[in-house]
Amino acid sequence: MEKTDVLVIGSSAAGLVAALTAKRVYKDKKVTVVRKEEKTLIPCGIPYVFGSVDSTDNNILPSDKMFSEAGIELQIGEAVSINRENKTCKLQSGSEIGYEKLVLATGSTPAKPDWLKGAQLENVYTVPKDKNYLDSMQEKLKSHKKVVVVGGGFIGVEISDELNKAGKDVTLVEILPHVLELAFDEDIAVKAENILIDRGVKVLGGNGIKEIFGAQNVEGVLLNNGVKLEADAVILAMGYKPNTKLAKEAGLPLSAKNFIITDEYMRTEDTNIFAIGDCAEKRDFVTRKPSSVMLASTACAEARIAGMNLFKLSAVKTFSGTISIFSTAIGDTGFGVAGLTETKARQEGFDIVCGEFEGIDRHPGTLSDTQKQMVKLVVGKETGIILGGEVIGGKSVGELTNMIGFIIQNRMDINAILTSQIGTHPLLTASPAGYPLLKAAGNAAVQIMFNNKEGRLSA
Amino acid sequence: MEKTDVLVIGSSAAGLVAALTAKRVYKDKKVTVVRKEEKTLIPCGIPYVFGSVDSTDNNILPSDKMFSEAGIELQIGEAVSINRENKTCKLQSGSEIGYEKLVLATGSTPAKPDWLKGAQLENVYTVPKDKNYLDSMQEKLKSHKKVVVVGGGFIGVEISDELNKAGKDVTLVEILPHVLELAFDEDIAVKAENILIDRGVKVLGGNGIKEIFGAQNVEGVLLNNGVKLEADAVILAMGYKPNTKLAKEAGLPLSAKNFIITDEYMRTEDTNIFAIGDCAEKRDFVTRKPSSVMLASTACAEARIAGMNLFKLSAVKTFSGTISIFSTAIGDTGFGVAGLTETKARQEGFDIVCGEFEGIDRHPGTLSDTQKQMVKLVVGKETGIILGGEVIGGKSVGELTNMIGFIIQNRMDINAILTSQIGTHPLLTASPAGYPLLKAAGNAAVQIMFNNKEGRLSA
Repeated sequence: MEKTDVLVIGSSAAGLVAALTAKRVYKDKKVTVVRKEEKTLIPCGIPYVFGSVDSTDNNILPSDKMFSEAGIELQIGEAVSINRENKTCKLQSGSEIGYEKLVLATGSTPAKPDWLKGAQLENVYTVPKDKNYLDSMQEKLKSHKKVVVVGGGFIGVEISDELNKAGKDVTLVEILPHVLELAFDEDIAVKAENILIDRGVKVLGGNGIKEIFGAQNVEGVLLNNGVKLEADAVILAMGYKPNTKLAKEAGLPLSAKNFIITDEYMRTEDTNIFAIGDCAEKRDFVTRKPSSVMLASTACAEARIAGMNLFKLSAVKTFSGTISIFSTAIGDTGFGVAGLTETKARQEGFDIVCGEFEGIDRHPGTLSDTQKQMVKLVVGKETGIILGGEVIGGKSVGELTNMIGFIIQNRMDINAILTSQIGTHPLLTASPAGYPLLKAAGNAAVQIMFNNKEGRLSA
Repeated sequence: MEKTDVLVIGSSAAGLVAALTAKRVYKDKKVTVVRKEEKTLIPCGIPYVFGSVDSTDNNILPSDKMFSEAGIELQIGEAVSINRENKTCKLQSGSEIGYEKLVLATGSTPAKPDWLKGAQLENVYTVPKDKNYLDSMQEKLKSHKKVVVVGGGFIGVEISDELNKAGKDVTLVEILPHVLELAFDEDIAVKAENILIDRGVKVLGGNGIKEIFGAQNVEGVLLNNGVKLEADAVILAMGYKPNTKLAKEAGLPLSAKNFIITDEYMRTEDTNIFAIGDCAEKRDFVTRKPSSVMLASTACAEARIAGMNLFKLSAVKTFSGTISIFSTAIGDTGFGVAGLTETKARQEGFDIVCGEFEGIDRHPGTLSDTQKQMVKLVVGKETGIILGGEVIGGKSVGELTNMIGFIIQNRMDINAILTSQIGTHPLLTASPAGYPLLKAAGNAAVQIMFNNKEGRLSA
């Protein structure tokens, strides 16, 4: 029987980073990765294969090269069972691999609700991280004109925008009043939705679907309000569920929502088995409640932590809960969020103030590629600590959102932000006197000082 | 005699932000700003009036509107003396203003070295923050073809690039081997220099000038190495000196380099007088040595701190030294630096390792606007604390540099970065598995762990 020191199951973002980290930190250990797929897709790039990146062939994670350069062994195969007593993992092929430490990075699969009649019809798709499936779906979509996308989260919004760009007649159906409303506060979600509508996507908010109809091929969807929409193809973007069969059958405890339970070192109940990424349970950094957020970036943070703690624990290398840092772009406008939204913070019972400021992302505003930049901060009233932030702007919004992520993770308060130095440059950022992040912090400070709600938007 | 609670002298970035902060925090106090100029220019936009923003009229700080909206009084006039005993300030016009608290934001003036023969010739220019001067300079430059720029710091580089874009024949002379070498490590400075050269600027590194020659109009410059360069115009970008005459005559202590000495609350020796921005002495955040860096963004941080501490001190609202966060763009490539460079850290005697990683700023790299992104981190070997960082990339480099600024200001160490969550999106950032900031931190960690210099650039 083959033996290895570290066995990683799965090689999407989490498995890749866990293996690389393990080899970086424990360079004398043998690290082996087992995965089912011949080729791994870049997960967040998937919606863009339908337009901007053109084909799944342009969206391949360069993991194989990285593995061979780092001296990590890769095997293509499906892990079917774990024997925790013998510390072995059995593959579909029948072969077994012995491990010292096992890392489960088994990912997630698109949800296709049981109650949804017609979900099995031809030309009803989900969006799995599966190259063959997506290639065939993309080929078939060529002959389809009318596409209904169900679910206005990030995947649904991004695919709708890309298919619209590619000339399809796209209708996006979302059960909440507006798209992206699970991630952003309503005012920001509405701005994103309006850009999507301006670009040509038909958005039906506040509409659930009742069933999908058709004979063999899909012909349309019936909404809860009785309206029927014709469709040549339907794409279900209704979320993902964790792949935890392997863990469950090995007797590892799962959460109520079926995620593998881990500690802050990313260890399962069996301290030789770690779980990371979409299959692992997460808690929210601020609320401490279980979170169903699945993000490649969170997965990579967990993967680094697991990789570093495999053979010796470090109290300073732990996972402290997911910040849920999201960003996306619709056309030239970027949207980002980190930590709690205002809505979520109020729901959870935090006593907060919100500071907002809208400025520009270059200066002076007479520069040709200047865009508006809006920052909204959610601030604990008693402590002044930043609990969350939302951003709208140009393409620098991704890094600006990450800056807010660092602010939250460092538990910085309003005073720390107001005394911080930032760097500014006409072609790259807002002006030093009108930097929206600092102005938003100033507006929050006014409200805390004077208990003055009008301060919220004042310059 | 007129009386005010807070008198601010100067209304460039520092004066503007100090006045706005004072009024925000102490809303019942009367705040008055006195400045010489009819109109204030956006300081960092000045190099761009020669090209991208076209005219000084497109580069005006919208301070007057902000003052009137905030209820701040503005007077155009020059402050000529301070009577500290009576707490009054006299203007050129002869009128006097009584103050409770005085904020000196008197800025800086271009250096024109005494030893430089020919500096007084026609068509020899400096780059002051003076609209009338720049308008006249810009008008005269229209008829000039050959321009020699002396000094390859940010202002010299940015003006050279803009004049080159505007069709001038530009030669940039720098006494150090490469442009921007005071701000960046040599390898990065060389990359910036090469882009500048590719765009058509002639760069003469390692060359000081000896004198400027000509009859009435400038005809050229003579370099230290004996070479003569013909020139229709010469622009001296040889740094700035603080405007501290007013403070000096009022008996306030100045540093050896002529800056006004302040404490961490930005108070001078006279606790009713604050000094901020280019005229105020700064210490480096890490080395604690005096720093001659003049940055609008640092000035604004000081201004916020002064404004908050005017009438009551707060121990959590202090200035902890300048981080020197710079960024610039040459063509589509952005360059940024925060904190110590490797060169500077070694000069100062820090025991460091440097982690570097070059990746891309979008993902997958097949997306059309993808650019390379390089991050270099300077890390204290004993503590793992981040002392500095340098970045090359696309236009998100400005915010990425600010992220590193927050990392330094929070005294984060390698473990804190490696366990941090970042958000990623194909159209906005690098991939979660190849995010250069985290990869650079990983490479630094390897060197600390294994004392392994080859780790520096490993993936």
